[in-house]
Amino acid sequence: MDLLQTNIKVAYLVHTSDWKNAPTTGHLNQIENRIETDANLMKKVSSLKTPSPVLAVFKIPTNNIDASIIKNSLSILLDDVQDPGNLGTIIRIADWFGIKNIFCSQNTVDVYNPKVIQASMGAIARVKVTYTSLHDLISSHQSKDFPVYGTFLEGETIYKCDLQNKGFIVMGNEGQGISEEIGQLVSDKLFIPNFPADQETSESLNVSVATAIICSEFRRGEY
Amino acid sequence: MDLLQTNIKVAYLVHTSDWKNAPTTGHLNQIENRIETDANLMKKVSSLKTPSPVLAVFKIPTNNIDASIIKNSLSILLDDVQDPGNLGTIIRIADWFGIKNIFCSQNTVDVYNPKVIQASMGAIARVKVTYTSLHDLISSHQSKDFPVYGTFLEGETIYKCDLQNKGFIVMGNEGQGISEEIGQLVSDKLFIPNFPADQETSESLNVSVATAIICSEFRRGEY
Repeated sequence: MDLLQTNIKVAYLVHTSDWKNAPTTGHLNQIENRIETDANLMKKVSSLKTPSPVLAVFKIPTNNIDASIIKNSLSILLDDVQDPGNLGTIIRIADWFGIKNIFCSQNTVDVYNPKVIQASMGAIARVKVTYTSLHDLISSHQSKDFPVYGTFLEGETIYKCDLQNKGFIVMGNEGQGISEEIGQLVSDKLFIPNFPADQETSESLNVSVATAIICSEFRRGEY
Repeated sequence: MDLLQTNIKVAYLVHTSDWKNAPTTGHLNQIENRIETDANLMKKVSSLKTPSPVLAVFKIPTNNIDASIIKNSLSILLDDVQDPGNLGTIIRIADWFGIKNIFCSQNTVDVYNPKVIQASMGAIARVKVTYTSLHDLISSHQSKDFPVYGTFLEGETIYKCDLQNKGFIVMGNEGQGISEEIGQLVSDKLFIPNFPADQETSESLNVSVATAIICSEFRRGEY
């Protein structure tokens, strides 16, 4: 439903006759390929146990990356994130904190995996997700004025770091963290400290949870 | 595996013969009910597509709640959180930020749901999770010196709030937020602001993501 409210183009729309938002007026009514059906068919085509009364096929938007925007804003870089729930949640976090671009390594989970779309809760319409070589991307942008942030166990306590309103924030794979190749390009190593520091705790935080805390830290200075 | 390293008692341990951590020495060797088997049987008894080479049945620990600890520390209260992944992630977050107690409303998802245990990544051994009436719990603790925090869209920007190192942090259901009954008992309404404030964004943050940002905010003053 969230996606139907956005500018992403609908290729097909399938819904039950008693779907409460069935298009009678407004832009939904203008969708050319619209099929009304019954709940049984929805059950057959849905991957969910409790199927939605509406299914839509969207056109994959083309992302035009504006280099000047990248240079002057924060972007998130995902180095082989594997879990679709994590990617979807990170898209939703980026949307909340006004981060317009996410760059994924080629081995990151597919953004069009249904579980990613579900977890992103419509945020996918406002955040551009692009698959590319993170190494090449970082190499072509890195400069003294453009920091590359990443979390490491040996990093500096994030609460005391100088966090700028531009740069790349690199987040690593669920099990392995940031790869050695990309880690070497990180200019500012950050760490979210556990509390109290001397007490036994979990080995790490989940990657989407860590992304949330980091994004919040970057934006809190603006308030 | 994480749980086997903790103090939670093992009732049964089933593992393949080639499990690399198979007990030969150390405390695993002292487990009375230990069964060695092959990978095929593990596949039959596991709920996962790729079964672990080890399965353990643990004794559910009895939680003795120390009222004086509650009074002088932060606890998380979950008002009907439904998703097992969210509960597990919140337990891991609590562990990271030194929050020893989570109280769940009776309608919150069962902490012994396998998906909760998995998402908690062993943190369940260090965080006490107790099911109770949140209304009665809050009523019996509330005082001028003991704040009850909760997130609301009309709350105050969390970055500017006076956050104490004691009190209850109430987190609500995924779709409905904090219930009206419990919301009336909240003394300090908080809000995690989106950025920039005037731009269209997601309706809300995921409950475990919001919990992470809030816990980080409570602890950052200590560094």
